[in-house]
Amino acid sequence: MTEQFRFLPIAKRLASYQASNFNGDLLAGVIVAIMLIPQAMAYAMLAGLPPEIGLYASMLPLIIYGLFGSSNFLSVGPVAITSLLVAATIAETNVSGTSGGAVAVGLMLALLSGAILLTMGLARLGFLINFISHPVIIGFVSAAAILIALSQLEHILGLNIPKDVSTLEILPYVVANVNLVNITTLAIGLSSIILLLLTDRPLAAMLLRFGVAANIITIIGKLGPILVIVLGVASVTFFSLDQTQAVAITGTIPAGLPQISVRQFDFSIVQQLIVPALVISLVGFVESISVAKALASKRRQKVDANQELLALGMANLSASVTGACPVTGGFSRSAVNFSAGANSGLASIITAIFIAISLLFLTPWFYYLPKAVLAATIMVAIVKLIDIQGFIATWRYNKADTASLITTFLSVLAVGIEAGIVAGILVSVCLYLLRTSMPHIAIVGRVGKSEHFRNVKHYDVEVYSDTLIIRVDESLYFANSRYLEDQLLAAASEHKKLKNIVLICSAVNFIDSSAVEALQNLIIELRDSGVTFHFAELKIPVLRQLERSHLLNGLAPGKVFMSTHDAVQELCK
Amino acid sequence: MTEQFRFLPIAKRLASYQASNFNGDLLAGVIVAIMLIPQAMAYAMLAGLPPEIGLYASMLPLIIYGLFGSSNFLSVGPVAITSLLVAATIAETNVSGTSGGAVAVGLMLALLSGAILLTMGLARLGFLINFISHPVIIGFVSAAAILIALSQLEHILGLNIPKDVSTLEILPYVVANVNLVNITTLAIGLSSIILLLLTDRPLAAMLLRFGVAANIITIIGKLGPILVIVLGVASVTFFSLDQTQAVAITGTIPAGLPQISVRQFDFSIVQQLIVPALVISLVGFVESISVAKALASKRRQKVDANQELLALGMANLSASVTGACPVTGGFSRSAVNFSAGANSGLASIITAIFIAISLLFLTPWFYYLPKAVLAATIMVAIVKLIDIQGFIATWRYNKADTASLITTFLSVLAVGIEAGIVAGILVSVCLYLLRTSMPHIAIVGRVGKSEHFRNVKHYDVEVYSDTLIIRVDESLYFANSRYLEDQLLAAASEHKKLKNIVLICSAVNFIDSSAVEALQNLIIELRDSGVTFHFAELKIPVLRQLERSHLLNGLAPGKVFMSTHDAVQELCK
Repeated sequence: MTEQFRFLPIAKRLASYQASNFNGDLLAGVIVAIMLIPQAMAYAMLAGLPPEIGLYASMLPLIIYGLFGSSNFLSVGPVAITSLLVAATIAETNVSGTSGGAVAVGLMLALLSGAILLTMGLARLGFLINFISHPVIIGFVSAAAILIALSQLEHILGLNIPKDVSTLEILPYVVANVNLVNITTLAIGLSSIILLLLTDRPLAAMLLRFGVAANIITIIGKLGPILVIVLGVASVTFFSLDQTQAVAITGTIPAGLPQISVRQFDFSIVQQLIVPALVISLVGFVESISVAKALASKRRQKVDANQELLALGMANLSASVTGACPVTGGFSRSAVNFSAGANSGLASIITAIFIAISLLFLTPWFYYLPKAVLAATIMVAIVKLIDIQGFIATWRYNKADTASLITTFLSVLAVGIEAGIVAGILVSVCLYLLRTSMPHIAIVGRVGKSEHFRNVKHYDVEVYSDTLIIRVDESLYFANSRYLEDQLLAAASEHKKLKNIVLICSAVNFIDSSAVEALQNLIIELRDSGVTFHFAELKIPVLRQLERSHLLNGLAPGKVFMSTHDAVQELCK
Repeated sequence: MTEQFRFLPIAKRLASYQASNFNGDLLAGVIVAIMLIPQAMAYAMLAGLPPEIGLYASMLPLIIYGLFGSSNFLSVGPVAITSLLVAATIAETNVSGTSGGAVAVGLMLALLSGAILLTMGLARLGFLINFISHPVIIGFVSAAAILIALSQLEHILGLNIPKDVSTLEILPYVVANVNLVNITTLAIGLSSIILLLLTDRPLAAMLLRFGVAANIITIIGKLGPILVIVLGVASVTFFSLDQTQAVAITGTIPAGLPQISVRQFDFSIVQQLIVPALVISLVGFVESISVAKALASKRRQKVDANQELLALGMANLSASVTGACPVTGGFSRSAVNFSAGANSGLASIITAIFIAISLLFLTPWFYYLPKAVLAATIMVAIVKLIDIQGFIATWRYNKADTASLITTFLSVLAVGIEAGIVAGILVSVCLYLLRTSMPHIAIVGRVGKSEHFRNVKHYDVEVYSDTLIIRVDESLYFANSRYLEDQLLAAASEHKKLKNIVLICSAVNFIDSSAVEALQNLIIELRDSGVTFHFAELKIPVLRQLERSHLLNGLAPGKVFMSTHDAVQELCK
């Protein structure tokens, strides 16, 4: 990559841009805009923000990402999971119940997330997300999807659920107040859900039978949300359902573009928002980088994690100065962007232009939009996130990973999103440490007269009464070095005729200083009991490092053998 | 071991006991008692407790440990490090400034530590101490030694340092108030220190030249404390230094044995004490098990960590019912016990009997004992704990371990003991995770026409333009699986003619479900770019586990090769 364009990937991209590329970018930009308008308003509602905030978040940030992002396909904007995190933060923060207070929290979260992502990008800390394991992500996303679905029930049912009813109390509350359900609202909500489900898979299957191209079908399938919006607005307007049946509607959305300003920042709430902003940044980045990498590899392109941090950081900063909420790369929109033929960040910029046009001219049309339609859009989108297959696969594969998954899932539901993720990370780290703290240690013997050595438990091998050959299948470090010491001393005390122990280190990638200390003790303890300790098959870097300790000086009469075969040749004559 | 005696090791020991064994136990018991009397009072003073509490802690707990302990040599009682922890806890706890409040905290700490150790023993959680790495212990013990030395300055100098002067402010305070130093006290303190230093190494060297046996010398060297006590008491009594020179003395120590009672327990402070008790338990156990194991191996005996937890737990419970403070196995006393010829827990019981005798008859003699002498005893004992050699060895060996050491050392000094240990453990765990999160990945080639494959960077080997053979030197788990994915994709994008990637898994001991997910992505991403992924040298347990995932189903046309040689034979014809 040309060095002067290192931080502006689109410049390099456009240098090789061809006129034919523009058709793809234009089509993709328009399709994504049509998809994004209802999503943006719905996710703003989910976050507890006015609908225009979602549209603001879908304008400037898309332009910034289009310029600085390293993915040609990623479509940024508000997404379901981060909107849920914003909603939880607004509920926890001591702002007045007005939407002004909520908006202030939203834009401060965008500001802080932007700063965090930018800092991580500059410090090249992209690797940090690797510590969020896959089971933790499955558990978190599934639990978050359930929380999101529960939070939208009130809009589908036309019920006013008081703020002090916690998410887990929503279902009992609904059962107790089932007589208050607004039947008309419920009818709109349910028929929207059914229409959305039909326009997804069944429609695709039908179109496929009629011979329509696969990528066209994908695009048409994503037009369901705009269809239910048109039908919803039409039916409320035509039958005055807001007046006659008290159907909740979106109401006035201020027309016009957002103002760029920094005056709205409320730095008094920064301290309360730092932890939520950190979680929003990391979770949003995990979602974004996953989809960006998956799409890039389909075209044998690469995504640079640190450049993505910079681009998403700037996108969030731009969201905050336009009064919007946190943004990140969304899964379904990016996939549509890709299928519709996006070739560069220009597609993203075109989407932003269409969102701007809708803000200037279309907002009056959204006045009669029933909230139940937006809730239906969210419901259908997030139910797919409940990953039952992922749970089953994890359960079948590995019980320790299942423990991380269930811990995360239950803590997110019972305690909260941030606590749940932290608990999941802690459990997965502890289980990993536990696993490496009790490594597999095998006593081996020689296969026939060969140079191969195998576990005496599984193979019929030659062993020696005065020499024990032991292989340890893990790097040696503080958490497992005492265990190794104990196991070898136990083995020594069980073999009374023993004179030598040979430790095969072919699977030892490093030895830390706690392990050096433990080995030093072990060597002395074995010597005190008349047994000599030897190394075999030490890797060169490990041997070089051991030479910087006193361990090898104190090894004599023990030796370092290049191969186990050499050791047996010399010790078992 | 006979099953009915499993929890009472001494019963088994006495079954094979011979009359000649008793001589060793008697001598060792007496010598340790002589050594323990001044230490017990000094460590009580260090903990901020009346001197008799130290003696109480050296009675019943020794009998209990003698019965239940699995080490024949360990000498339990108050030790310097845990006494410092008790002092810090007393200072932090909201008890009235009276010694009654301090005593209540001390015995509640013994009660809680006892309960914690007993629970850990019953739950067989002895392995938990493995997570305290050696550099963390060096950093913690060195910093604790400095804190102890600073806390004893006031007694050596005869200065009354107010309670609100923090440990780090002690030196500036002393400099500012140097005119208030009590010269007589300082003279007693300094001459005690000099005498203690002389009776240690120089005396030993001299006796050795006169042909005295080495273990006798060790014992005589440990008599220094009793010598300075006798001299100190004599000089104060003779010259009435407490009256004429205001030398601080120990004062009245109540004569008689402690009462066994549970009425003194103050459960209102339990919540404040749980974390300190946990730290005292773990730190005490680390010291105890280290010395027990070191001594046991000299006689080819074994120490059972879980039995040690049970015995130390019961010893601490017995300390609490006699109103004493937490106890654990001490390093120097246990070594003396061993050198003096202890053969069983009987030595410990004999020591306890002599401590009881001293409580009944000797306490009036301690009235005139200068506090400066006790402080000198502590000073000389703990300065050895400042482990500069350990720091240098760690620095030379490994910079990551040095970071854990320095973090622990500085946080213990600046923030506090518990926070310091926790910070050290966190840093060492994070650095370990970081190390395994970026494993060594080598592109390898064939050595000549052999079946051996080596790193292309270090060896002149045969490589293939359409097949890349890559070895990863670490188990694959959540923190490194994305890194591996990125590295392999990068390698693929650099080799444009590439058709196959073979991953050698000889050093992979497990693959968790995050890594399965990453490998699944990798296989698809490589396939999308025209490259087929293969495994080689998967270990049997790892292969068996992979068969429980969908990974191998999606591998085709990729294969699992038993050896790298097989892979090359088939792919590079």
